[in-house]
Amino acid sequence: MEGSSSPRRRTGGRSARVTQAVHRATLAALADKGLAGLSIEDIAARAGVNKTTIYRRWGTREALMADALGVGTTRQIAIPDTGSVRSDLAALARQVRDTILAPTNRNLMVALATSAGHETLAGLGPRYWAGRFAASRPIVERAIARGELPPGTDPDTLIIQVVGPLWFSVFGPGRAPDDAFVDRCVDIVLIGISHHA
Amino acid sequence: MEGSSSPRRRTGGRSARVTQAVHRATLAALADKGLAGLSIEDIAARAGVNKTTIYRRWGTREALMADALGVGTTRQIAIPDTGSVRSDLAALARQVRDTILAPTNRNLMVALATSAGHETLAGLGPRYWAGRFAASRPIVERAIARGELPPGTDPDTLIIQVVGPLWFSVFGPGRAPDDAFVDRCVDIVLIGISHHA
Repeated sequence: MEGSSSPRRRTGGRSARVTQAVHRATLAALADKGLAGLSIEDIAARAGVNKTTIYRRWGTREALMADALGVGTTRQIAIPDTGSVRSDLAALARQVRDTILAPTNRNLMVALATSAGHETLAGLGPRYWAGRFAASRPIVERAIARGELPPGTDPDTLIIQVVGPLWFSVFGPGRAPDDAFVDRCVDIVLIGISHHA
Repeated sequence: MEGSSSPRRRTGGRSARVTQAVHRATLAALADKGLAGLSIEDIAARAGVNKTTIYRRWGTREALMADALGVGTTRQIAIPDTGSVRSDLAALARQVRDTILAPTNRNLMVALATSAGHETLAGLGPRYWAGRFAASRPIVERAIARGELPPGTDPDTLIIQVVGPLWFSVFGPGRAPDDAFVDRCVDIVLIGISHHA
């Protein structure tokens, strides 16, 4: 399958398939082994490609992981735009809840949480999160424009306050937040902000 | 240092010192290696004791870890009792913030978060958290008794809502919550609850 240097074989459908296979293999390896145990050998074996293909296309493990995680892109981030901040935040919070309840994603998040202490991958977690926050900010900006939130409401702080309880629930005590709990978290924060001096 | 079967050497100061050394070694090993990499050999080497001492005193890796983490005890849990729910929760939240910002504890929390998928240690995280929640409940119960919170306020939900944003901040985007952020989280939740239908 690999080893040819013919440019024809590196473009179009085949190239896209290799990229997708390597992305999937990278996330699966990261979820299984964490950052510490991650190797290009393992990723290549999972994806069914040669190591040289990975090095040629991505250069470094850091670049590959950033690409697989969608760092610096907005692909895979569908931000709700329902016309009201309450339902936008409820939809976002349910998305987050569903994401972190899937075992592979849960392991990925745990792996990212350990990146801070990692020699060469320390920037990975912060870069991943910067992209998620940037994508989510329009929810708050639109709500301010509609007069639903006080001007000057900090989008990141609000999102941390809404998402945080779901996050802690799953990664702390290991409880799956149901829809009622998710909605309650959104309501409490919105009511709290609207009455906060 | 080890290997004697004399009962005199297993009691009093020496026994307490061994217990403390093994507890510390267990938590350090858990923080360094995570659940998957944890071994009694490693813990024994770190504590400067024989493996047999550990097996004799704790029996299993699970029992040792539960004991080192304080599962089923209230030691190391100082719950604030300041006379007001706002300052109790702010003090609790700062304790949590300071705890999870310490690298060893942060790694411990990550290790516990992975326990759900572990063959023999799956109960460890839930048991650890059950103890923390049980210890924290009096904050909410006293507040209800003082009329500061609506009767029927669920203590665990309230604590998850207050602590969650700090938790997500540290383990998600990797931001250290300052005192103003901690206090804001407490205020927003308390105001939200008091105005919630």
